[in-house]
Amino acid sequence: MDEDGFTLRDRTVCVVGLGLMGGSLALALRDRVAALTGVDVDPVTRAAALERGIVSRAADDLTLAREADVVVLATPVRTIIRLVGEIGPFLRPGALLFDIGSVKGPVVEAMNALPEAVGAVGGHPMCGKAEAGLRHAEAALYEGAPFVLCRTERSTEVALSIAGAIVNAVGARMIVMDAGWHDRAVAFISHLPYALSAALALTAGTYAATDPLAWSLAASGFRDTSRLAGSDPLMMADILLTNADAVLETLDAARGSLEELSALIRRGDPEALIAYLERVQQIRHDWERQRS
Amino acid sequence: MDEDGFTLRDRTVCVVGLGLMGGSLALALRDRVAALTGVDVDPVTRAAALERGIVSRAADDLTLAREADVVVLATPVRTIIRLVGEIGPFLRPGALLFDIGSVKGPVVEAMNALPEAVGAVGGHPMCGKAEAGLRHAEAALYEGAPFVLCRTERSTEVALSIAGAIVNAVGARMIVMDAGWHDRAVAFISHLPYALSAALALTAGTYAATDPLAWSLAASGFRDTSRLAGSDPLMMADILLTNADAVLETLDAARGSLEELSALIRRGDPEALIAYLERVQQIRHDWERQRS
Repeated sequence: MDEDGFTLRDRTVCVVGLGLMGGSLALALRDRVAALTGVDVDPVTRAAALERGIVSRAADDLTLAREADVVVLATPVRTIIRLVGEIGPFLRPGALLFDIGSVKGPVVEAMNALPEAVGAVGGHPMCGKAEAGLRHAEAALYEGAPFVLCRTERSTEVALSIAGAIVNAVGARMIVMDAGWHDRAVAFISHLPYALSAALALTAGTYAATDPLAWSLAASGFRDTSRLAGSDPLMMADILLTNADAVLETLDAARGSLEELSALIRRGDPEALIAYLERVQQIRHDWERQRS
Repeated sequence: MDEDGFTLRDRTVCVVGLGLMGGSLALALRDRVAALTGVDVDPVTRAAALERGIVSRAADDLTLAREADVVVLATPVRTIIRLVGEIGPFLRPGALLFDIGSVKGPVVEAMNALPEAVGAVGGHPMCGKAEAGLRHAEAALYEGAPFVLCRTERSTEVALSIAGAIVNAVGARMIVMDAGWHDRAVAFISHLPYALSAALALTAGTYAATDPLAWSLAASGFRDTSRLAGSDPLMMADILLTNADAVLETLDAARGSLEELSALIRRGDPEALIAYLERVQQIRHDWERQRS
């Protein structure tokens, strides 16, 4: 028994989806559980996971999930939702179904329909990096990151305790939160940054196609603001589609804010523009302060 | 005589505006020139510049510029334009007037009206950092950065050579470019990233004001995409106002791109959305590749 009163040590964990996030979770957990197995549709990824010892067994279907005490879904969100719908009859009674997808409302809804003998908790770790795929996975990825847990109608005390033990084991900070609230918040602080970064890449890229020398002037400002545009399109498309209402709300708000800036520039009144940009700077400085 | 055939060693340089950019330029140049003096309206900044030995003399008016062989204007852009208009009669014949403002068209236009005995070149180093002010100045800031030079009607061969020697002395890479072309290119790869970063800070900040817990979910994606929102409002207002036409063009294009993304999300067709996001990722990857 660990400090949470639940031992991961005698439990078998199966991670479905061995990309950057699933692979990193497996790396952080493998020495703290009885066995760690993996499911991935890509044979190259399965071979690499076995070779690096990240998983002890690997398969391309859900047979390994059937034997596990804890199943972690770490695929793109639309696949998570589909798998939650399919996996119920395969899970052993008392097993925990857990996921680490970026949108929680539709996942929790699907988990609510699971058989009553199954425990289920939604999860969303707030970390990642620019490069996707198992070869960029690292055990330290989750360290210090906020890790959201969302209750479902299948969240027994045991299920919540095991999920919490996983969060602790990977070194993250647990935040328990309502799924709907989570989805609206991440639309503003995670999905909107991606959308704006994408708009920058497209707009600047379209211009640079007419004059490639423009790229030679790009410095750290362009680099940082466009970083998220390099994110995996499959993962991001699932996020934007499954969180559509909240994402559309943030896109409308951001367009409104760009229109306001355009109007201030057209007006040409330095004092009004400076006041607007001081508000912008204040928000960013306040965020930095509360963070440290 | 150095490799460029021009010696900075026997020239006196006066830097007007001892902020991050002017202070860093002074630090990188001070041991390579006959004397380095500074002008700043802020007495605390002048005292700090003298104490750190960044300048040998400091004043709050243009008297020191009158004695210098090279005058570098390193204030916000609207102040640069005003100073170029005022400083002509003060400069000694054969002196070089140089600036490091982020917008070049209106500066070059003002330089074209200088007395014929004066040399003048516009400059724009593509570097910086999040923190403003002399206390963040460092000699290495310009190392390896692209440094744009724009010809004016006062750009004699001697003037261009001295400007080039300054670029070399601070370790930057010279790019000679038409001012109008420069202004349109930087609108897309420098001013638009700032505007999008500002829109993110305002939109997310307005939401977080209704629910401060949202901030606790913000991770590296929000941090990087909102970094430029922390830029100095006075400097940025001058840039947006003096480059208004090009900036408004980029803001319209970015709004159009966000509208396109909204339409794709509303349509709910995964294939079309993925194709769009793959274009985004490709642009960002292509930019990274040509950069390395």
